[in-house]
Amino acid sequence: MPVKPDRAPLADRPASGGLALVIIDMISSWDFDGADRLGPAALAIAPHIGALKQRCSEVGVPAVFVNDNRGRWRSEFRELVRQSRDNETGAAIAQHLQPVEADYSVLKPKQSVFYATPLDLLLRHLRVRRLIVTGVASDQCIAMSAAEARMRDYDVVVPRDAVAAQTAGRNDAALRQLEEAHGIATTPSAQVELPAGATEPAR
Amino acid sequence: MPVKPDRAPLADRPASGGLALVIIDMISSWDFDGADRLGPAALAIAPHIGALKQRCSEVGVPAVFVNDNRGRWRSEFRELVRQSRDNETGAAIAQHLQPVEADYSVLKPKQSVFYATPLDLLLRHLRVRRLIVTGVASDQCIAMSAAEARMRDYDVVVPRDAVAAQTAGRNDAALRQLEEAHGIATTPSAQVELPAGATEPAR
Amino acid sequence: MPVKPDRAPLADRPASGGLALVIIDMISSWDFDGADRLGPAALAIAPHIGALKQRCSEVGVPAVFVNDNRGRWRSEFRELVRQSRDNETGAAIAQHLQPVEADYSVLKPKQSVFYATPLDLLLRHLRVRRLIVTGVASDQCIAMSAAEARMRDYDVVVPRDAVAAQTAGRNDAALRQLEEAHGIATTPSAQVELPAGATEPAR
Amino acid sequence: MPVKPDRAPLADRPASGGLALVIIDMISSWDFDGADRLGPAALAIAPHIGALKQRCSEVGVPAVFVNDNRGRWRSEFRELVRQSRDNETGAAIAQHLQPVEADYSVLKPKQSVFYATPLDLLLRHLRVRRLIVTGVASDQCIAMSAAEARMRDYDVVVPRDAVAAQTAGRNDAALRQLEEAHGIATTPSAQVELPAGATEPAR
Repeated sequence: MPVKPDRAPLADRPASGGLALVIIDMISSWDFDGADRLGPAALAIAPHIGALKQRCSEVGVPAVFVNDNRGRWRSEFRELVRQSRDNETGAAIAQHLQPVEADYSVLKPKQSVFYATPLDLLLRHLRVRRLIVTGVASDQCIAMSAAEARMRDYDVVVPRDAVAAQTAGRNDAALRQLEEAHGIATTPSAQVELPAGATEPAR
Repeated sequence: MPVKPDRAPLADRPASGGLALVIIDMISSWDFDGADRLGPAALAIAPHIGALKQRCSEVGVPAVFVNDNRGRWRSEFRELVRQSRDNETGAAIAQHLQPVEADYSVLKPKQSVFYATPLDLLLRHLRVRRLIVTGVASDQCIAMSAAEARMRDYDVVVPRDAVAAQTAGRNDAALRQLEEAHGIATTPSAQVELPAGATEPAR
Repeated sequence: MPVKPDRAPLADRPASGGLALVIIDMISSWDFDGADRLGPAALAIAPHIGALKQRCSEVGVPAVFVNDNRGRWRSEFRELVRQSRDNETGAAIAQHLQPVEADYSVLKPKQSVFYATPLDLLLRHLRVRRLIVTGVASDQCIAMSAAEARMRDYDVVVPRDAVAAQTAGRNDAALRQLEEAHGIATTPSAQVELPAGATEPAR
Repeated sequence: MPVKPDRAPLADRPASGGLALVIIDMISSWDFDGADRLGPAALAIAPHIGALKQRCSEVGVPAVFVNDNRGRWRSEFRELVRQSRDNETGAAIAQHLQPVEADYSVLKPKQSVFYATPLDLLLRHLRVRRLIVTGVASDQCIAMSAAEARMRDYDVVVPRDAVAAQTAGRNDAALRQLEEAHGIATTPSAQVELPAGATEPAR
């Protein structure tokens, strides 16, 4: 819990306002079972996540892409990014949501962003206390990750127009459960309040 | 993953059929916020869990009670059990569901049964591959624990008459999400198939 | 990392000076392989740990007993404490080192105090940043736990007269490695500086 | 513990003989504090690790490179590999030890290969039960990782000519502690027994 920047510092500078934007499983080749329904749903929310990421970038709120490691621990994030543009949905999403050098990336082996990953440690090094959780699928990776973030005492918001599931019904049910069972806000992305600006200059 | 019984063996003998019954947060003083609704719901499912536990006991399927550590790391499970009988709901549940010497117990600090607990390790030492997850609340501790068990590659069944939430609507929605998003069966408790008998004698 | 006292608060009040005393595997029946050598060595350091615990108690520095769960997840800490007094070494150690109501206790399944336990979470709730690590064996549980505490960014001191191994040679080598490889101080227990007093009243 | 190859299979096929070769922190720019002593020591063991890796490769024993993420979660393993060749020591080590497509790679944030990484999960998917642990530094990352592997019930061998520390004295002391306190063999690399061949064809 105490965090020291010795050895290999994991992060450049504290997150502005103790806030981070987490973008889950939006970089994909959309070739898995169920992708025919999830892909279009992801494309529909991509502009909202993209706009939110832009606002975050302007005030020093870091973005962390968390993605399935589909390459069996032999491929890497940048390769996933390249591959994702080879299909129509992935290329369309990339119009709105493109990882840049300043973004962090974490590969996850399973559904939860916290399971067997360095995310919690990275967030501590960024001095993050609040998370904006976005991406797909709202009733699986998003639901698990948001509930686990709350369990780890992060404040969590899941903007309702920045997550999606295979069907609108499943998305609505997942959002309702996050609100009722975990007390997580589902404020629309445009209304999520961000800090005024970077809290301190980069080291 | 490889498991050796050296040092302090964590379990007496392998679980019959690689199966374990997990009973979550049913031992309680029911004095927390929302307990007025969750307590009666828990009492209603207690006979079903009790009957299932009896069947499990007869064929060598171990039961593990997992409970919140409300004693701030100074109290213990047996004390929780004693305290739980001091209130009406707790005493009524105890008619159906009473921990015995043969049962295992694990205290959890937060919602998930896997977070900061030895449960996964205990289950490995029991050679468990399948879990029957029961208790309360279905849209919080149960939903998180069942999804995380599935993520850890356990087969999971959540008997629909052996879990409850604050309202029937929230319980139904939670069960539907476990089925749709995680492929978890919600077979009624009386129909959950158990192994024929103990796979090997106690050491 | 952010810590909220909601749900089941894990700790009464912040640790004075962000400091905690961790006492590892000193409560034992001393009936395991190698106990004939480790028991007397443990008895020899017990007065030093006892005196340090007394000083800690006076200024609001909490003590956490971390012990092997030898009861196969069916016994509990208080039972371990009772059983430990049934043998000569255990009874002699108890003259110097007796758990009291105010102490915390954590059962560990394996050597490290952090592996599959709630210790890290408990320490966060206590707002601990510095650990005094004591007990046995210095080249096994102590060495692993101290190095892992350092890895988790805690400041760590291992008082050289408050730890022991099966032989003096192994103890010396373990202390040297903690100093050289991990930069951990081995200040004698009487010289470990404690905060002046409790930082804030109990909630 | 139970492992299913659904979703994103983490590994191609089971490790031959349930064995894996782990190579820790050998890919580096050798520009950190102490690298002037550790670099030459690493270069001296590189031929032994390289020869062992070659033998492993011939019989289907997978190699896993585990390295510090010095890029602050914005760089990747292949980039580390490229950068490591820009300095003399790194280039010399690369003569003996070059990651190839078939190798796995895991980035670690801290000293232990298990802390906040997917390594344990990857090893389970590879059906690994035995580890050959090699690399630097023997009294820090190697000592912690080998002891933690043992704690996780893996069989572990640390070939004494395939690990190094900043000084020969520290290396010797670390090897002695692994033997005495953890019962870990330090068999020379040429004498480590490997399985006869791949146990089953690739899926």
